[in-house]
Amino acid sequence: MLLNGLPSLAAPAEFFYNAVMPAQRIPKRSSGEGSFDLSRYLNSRTAAANRALDRFLPKATTKPATIHQAMRYSLFAGGKRLRPVLCLAAAEACGGAIEPALPLACAVECIHTYSLIHDDLPAMDNDDYRRGKLTNHKVFGEGIAVLAGDGLLTQAFEIAAQCRGWPRYSHRDVIRELAEAAGSLQLIAGQVADLEGEGKKTSAAQLRYIHERKTSALLRCSVRLGGMSANCTAAQLEALGDFGYHVGLAFQIIDDILDVTQTSEQLGKTAGKDVTAQKATYPSIVGMERSRKIAGELTDRAFAALKVFKGKAVALGALAEYLLKRDR
Amino acid sequence: MLLNGLPSLAAPAEFFYNAVMPAQRIPKRSSGEGSFDLSRYLNSRTAAANRALDRFLPKATTKPATIHQAMRYSLFAGGKRLRPVLCLAAAEACGGAIEPALPLACAVECIHTYSLIHDDLPAMDNDDYRRGKLTNHKVFGEGIAVLAGDGLLTQAFEIAAQCRGWPRYSHRDVIRELAEAAGSLQLIAGQVADLEGEGKKTSAAQLRYIHERKTSALLRCSVRLGGMSANCTAAQLEALGDFGYHVGLAFQIIDDILDVTQTSEQLGKTAGKDVTAQKATYPSIVGMERSRKIAGELTDRAFAALKVFKGKAVALGALAEYLLKRDR
Repeated sequence: MLLNGLPSLAAPAEFFYNAVMPAQRIPKRSSGEGSFDLSRYLNSRTAAANRALDRFLPKATTKPATIHQAMRYSLFAGGKRLRPVLCLAAAEACGGAIEPALPLACAVECIHTYSLIHDDLPAMDNDDYRRGKLTNHKVFGEGIAVLAGDGLLTQAFEIAAQCRGWPRYSHRDVIRELAEAAGSLQLIAGQVADLEGEGKKTSAAQLRYIHERKTSALLRCSVRLGGMSANCTAAQLEALGDFGYHVGLAFQIIDDILDVTQTSEQLGKTAGKDVTAQKATYPSIVGMERSRKIAGELTDRAFAALKVFKGKAVALGALAEYLLKRDR
Repeated sequence: MLLNGLPSLAAPAEFFYNAVMPAQRIPKRSSGEGSFDLSRYLNSRTAAANRALDRFLPKATTKPATIHQAMRYSLFAGGKRLRPVLCLAAAEACGGAIEPALPLACAVECIHTYSLIHDDLPAMDNDDYRRGKLTNHKVFGEGIAVLAGDGLLTQAFEIAAQCRGWPRYSHRDVIRELAEAAGSLQLIAGQVADLEGEGKKTSAAQLRYIHERKTSALLRCSVRLGGMSANCTAAQLEALGDFGYHVGLAFQIIDDILDVTQTSEQLGKTAGKDVTAQKATYPSIVGMERSRKIAGELTDRAFAALKVFKGKAVALGALAEYLLKRDR
């Protein structure tokens, strides 16, 4: 649907911005983060997510050891834990605790990691490095890498099913939320479109179609699941979805920019690979300056969505700001 | 655990048989199937499963069309629907209807099909034909084949989550049952062991380890989920698990035998590939005659498990008999 009737290459920067949601007054990004220690927050929530992941995953010695080593290799390869942290921050924004959100936060991270393992395969993006380490198939071979991805995807649902369930949200709702975001209409659709677009001329609308699915869908899912774990209201759930969607798009544009401007060492993965693979990116379609502007505007939209939390979503706001300004 | 302290190559046929469960009087296989029209039953239940699968899967025209065509290509490539039919028959044995069992029957078939697509990949078994048709990656390419498998695995959980839930079994129980059977300790573990065993000397105990995981786990899950959909008792659930486990092992031994004795045309897939791939099979380890004997004994065990249904599991019994005597 997004591919029909939309302007493509010639679209002004504002197209992306306005198409996202009806024009409205966008509040300035909150300045409340001054008193919020994001670094400390990130450390503590990342550690909580890591401990939970270690608890939920079979041990590296569990037979057959190869598969559990391979699953853990990628899961503990130094990922930023962005999705779990967003999930926990969303739970907290809704007045919840992090404990009930942890199974959902971990489930999302398993899905994210599986998608990276499969995307890195020779038949897909054919990447040798990820987060400064050899990719899964370079260490364990292609067969085991496929199976390690399969294992993490399956494990995600097993972990998610361990959540409590809440008055407003059942296990059924949680599984559906996760499966839809990871499924062939979202996460997988994005990878398909990405794969099929390589070497072809890509319009801005097509690029956004890919970003919405490859990145936004799972970020949106992360914060929505966090909200569910706090038994959030329908209005809060919608706001979280809005927030995750816009943060996801901004995040991906920044990723595209960093791919051009940073070195492989800085990124911990092969830099410049979008150019090499002739992949369309925001900088290549609308230029660097406008890409930055769009990312900023999308982040503003994300902030606007947090209004409903009346100042209680400080961590989510700080995370959005951090993601916009990051250099790796 | 199965690999420890068990006899291997030198084991008598009875080893397999006795190791399965404590020795007890095995009743003769029921002769009640004489009046049961299995062919008609298979046709009607297969058709119901096919209709439901078609309903649950995104249409082939749903964007991105490639992935949905690829998912449907393998899902509707003429599979026997053994797992869905066993699931429905289990529901009926417990006094349930087929309608509430259909989401679970379809979920299991999606998982089965995903595992075939990934197993056929060049990095795994490298098979060109399956059910008389080109394998998924031969038609759609490796990248899409990986994603089509991923899509079906994800879809399985989305479909399963659409079940009703029952007084004794929640969505949580259903998802856990499915994820455990498909996970890195069962289905995936079997494929890992299979992959790692190629070209190596395999003991009978190792071979059973593989069969239990690659085949029995999902068959066992199919009938247990069918029972759950009929809100079965704990005793019925255990009996179904027992039945599925033994039918699964027998099924795989027969598969090994047919791989040697039938032609590719008869099987609709590459015959003799176990020999070519130097894979251990029951015939290669204990000989053809004893393999047949073991398959028969395992089927007897499956029948014994049906005792608790007091004659109401006619379809399950007939299916077990049919699977033992099939020639393709």
